Amino acid sequence: MIDDIDAAMRSKGIDGIIVFGNTTLADPDLTYVVGGVLPRGGTYFKKLGRPPLLVVSNLDYGSAKRAGKVKRIQTLTQWGYERLLRRFENRGSAFPHLILQILRTEGVRGKVVLFGRNDLANGLHLAEKLERLGVRVIGQQSPTILEAARDRKDLNELEEIRGVGAKTAKVVNEVLHALRNAKEKRGHLQIDRKRATVGLIKFMIASKLAREKLIAPEGTIFAIGASGADPHNAGVDAAEIRKGKLIVFDIFPQAMSGYWFDMTRSFVVGRADARARKMFDAVKGAQMASVDFLTAGVTGESAMEVSCEVIERAGYRTVREIFQGKAKSLSTGFIHSLGHGVGLTIGESPYLSLGIKDSLQSREVVTVEPGVYLPGYGGVRIEDTVAVKSKGVEILAKVEKELEL
Amino acid sequence: MIDDIDAAMRSKGIDGIIVFGNTTLADPDLTYVVGGVLPRGGTYFKKLGRPPLLVVSNLDYGSAKRAGKVKRIQTLTQWGYERLLRRFENRGSAFPHLILQILRTEGVRGKVVLFGRNDLANGLHLAEKLERLGVRVIGQQSPTILEAARDRKDLNELEEIRGVGAKTAKVVNEVLHALRNAKEKRGHLQIDRKRATVGLIKFMIASKLAREKLIAPEGTIFAIGASGADPHNAGVDAAEIRKGKLIVFDIFPQAMSGYWFDMTRSFVVGRADARARKMFDAVKGAQMASVDFLTAGVTGESAMEVSCEVIERAGYRTVREIFQGKAKSLSTGFIHSLGHGVGLTIGESPYLSLGIKDSLQSREVVTVEPGVYLPGYGGVRIEDTVAVKSKGVEILAKVEKELEL
Repeated sequence: MIDDIDAAMRSKGIDGIIVFGNTTLADPDLTYVVGGVLPRGGTYFKKLGRPPLLVVSNLDYGSAKRAGKVKRIQTLTQWGYERLLRRFENRGSAFPHLILQILRTEGVRGKVVLFGRNDLANGLHLAEKLERLGVRVIGQQSPTILEAARDRKDLNELEEIRGVGAKTAKVVNEVLHALRNAKEKRGHLQIDRKRATVGLIKFMIASKLAREKLIAPEGTIFAIGASGADPHNAGVDAAEIRKGKLIVFDIFPQAMSGYWFDMTRSFVVGRADARARKMFDAVKGAQMASVDFLTAGVTGESAMEVSCEVIERAGYRTVREIFQGKAKSLSTGFIHSLGHGVGLTIGESPYLSLGIKDSLQSREVVTVEPGVYLPGYGGVRIEDTVAVKSKGVEILAKVEKELEL
Repeated sequence: MIDDIDAAMRSKGIDGIIVFGNTTLADPDLTYVVGGVLPRGGTYFKKLGRPPLLVVSNLDYGSAKRAGKVKRIQTLTQWGYERLLRRFENRGSAFPHLILQILRTEGVRGKVVLFGRNDLANGLHLAEKLERLGVRVIGQQSPTILEAARDRKDLNELEEIRGVGAKTAKVVNEVLHALRNAKEKRGHLQIDRKRATVGLIKFMIASKLAREKLIAPEGTIFAIGASGADPHNAGVDAAEIRKGKLIVFDIFPQAMSGYWFDMTRSFVVGRADARARKMFDAVKGAQMASVDFLTAGVTGESAMEVSCEVIERAGYRTVREIFQGKAKSLSTGFIHSLGHGVGLTIGESPYLSLGIKDSLQSREVVTVEPGVYLPGYGGVRIEDTVAVKSKGVEILAKVEKELEL
């Protein structure tokens, strides 16, 4: 949580942090400290033990006020940026002097860490210039102070993610409803008299997301039959939805606030064969067992072990074989990790994965998504996004888990 | 263009460049050198004078092949990454050793520049570790080697941007058509029997973008009346579209390839008053004059001067007053720059702005978007995206510029 930042700075001997960027878009750290969207970005300063300062362009002053998280907002003009630009001729040369001036005024004298998603070549150049001006710039390995703060959500963040979850669930339910009501005509499934292809469903999903004011910058997975056996295959638009074929539907939208949600359902239209039923039962059993197991204090690894055991008992292989040195690689069975953190990115710590010995903490938001894949046939993956509590978890959006539509 | 990289490396004394990231999403440099989408990113190595090497996870090997720009593709496993992970216990510690190993094998001994949009704290930490391992890491000020290469588009890139432009124009034309056919009922405009609000139009736009497989990660501006006088105001969903009110419609979508497009039209439904007509004529005249003026060899500043002159002659103020020291700030008239580069970002060099003395080059893609704003009343902005040619420009997508729908 954002209130953890001061304690973390103190324990690591850091006197100041700077978070900057030309936009908050796709910049989780800047979005986090600012609390909302700044179309042209800004620069955030935090001296140990003092309230932060946000410096923005005149045009973004209103956006910064609305974002609301930082109370002290000032403009570049107030700091004489135009004068610096004239003196140093370009932004790259003027910016380090602006930063130096603000750091001095804020009383930062010790080590400073730079944050924000920025082009590295520029960022390293800035660090070199600051060092020449006497600023002690240091790097940080993951999890950085801000990554660690973002890990545990506060109540507002949980409410925001719950809201994105409710909208996501609505879209998923509507898609399931449309598929359930697809009509068969001359051997082809139809929705609203159009042939039921992956392309049609994806357009339906995109329109519904638009209605809910969600975007899907990384797309949506809707993969049928054999293509569902590859977890990274998003599905082929021209593919037709056919009765009895396994479908993996994985949706991961983002709200304008920057927060994401993640949900996967697997199913068939009509009747499933025995092979699909067996895969589905194993994955659903594993998913529910891991969700039941999860609580503050357990490790990501142990949560994954629970799913592996259920899936292995059902007769499928799992990545445990690789970790135990019994296999070099795996293309069938449960071939990926159990889950990952969700927040201002769609994949971050904590990871629910073999080898991860850190204990989960309450208010972390993670996915639980075991899967079983049979190359040439298809895949089943079932995923909920949950908030870890001191006892158990809260499933942040609920949608039925039925094999047959 | 990408073929310029070797010459730029040589002239700057750089022996190797590394471009890396966890995703190509919102990472223009990584998208550029890879040529497409890698869901989990990758690491690109280029030794001066040698063909590049791309190292990806097993899961993304197929995506890297499809992206197609790099011929030498290898996996992390081939480089023994799992072994390094076991030895160093985490990614942050293992990654510098992986990089060192690859740099040595590729024969890189001199200065190395790191690229890719990454969290700066992590990036600086990586640079420190590499330096301790004997790698000479240096930063670069904008325009970096890759920014400069991205500036001038090759024929494939121009064709891709033209394609995004054609889809954008289609969406804009359909929205104009719907507004032109809006029916008035009891004093309210209706589209398909629904009240014509900004929210309805924005949903229509989002659905049409989805159909064209475009996304709008930064939203769409559809601002009516007084809200249009603030260039950063995206419009209020609840606002009703009323006859005779000025509307600013600014759309800036992105294709899955990573390339963006930018277009703005301003208009009224029904009849415009004299004030709107005067603003519109000034802005349209300025926009067409600057487009006519643009050609390889002219400066961004001179292209902007052309628009300023037309707008000033019509009786409006422009930011020239600030540059001439006659005003400290400006909230009315032409209050922003003329344009900016477009490609794998929606705002990059070259800038068509006062103070920019660099000459434009053929195959640069820029927006031309003068505007006039009257606080409390409304705004007019007209924008095309054009490719600079050795003689003149190509307007990459054409849509009517009419004040009255």
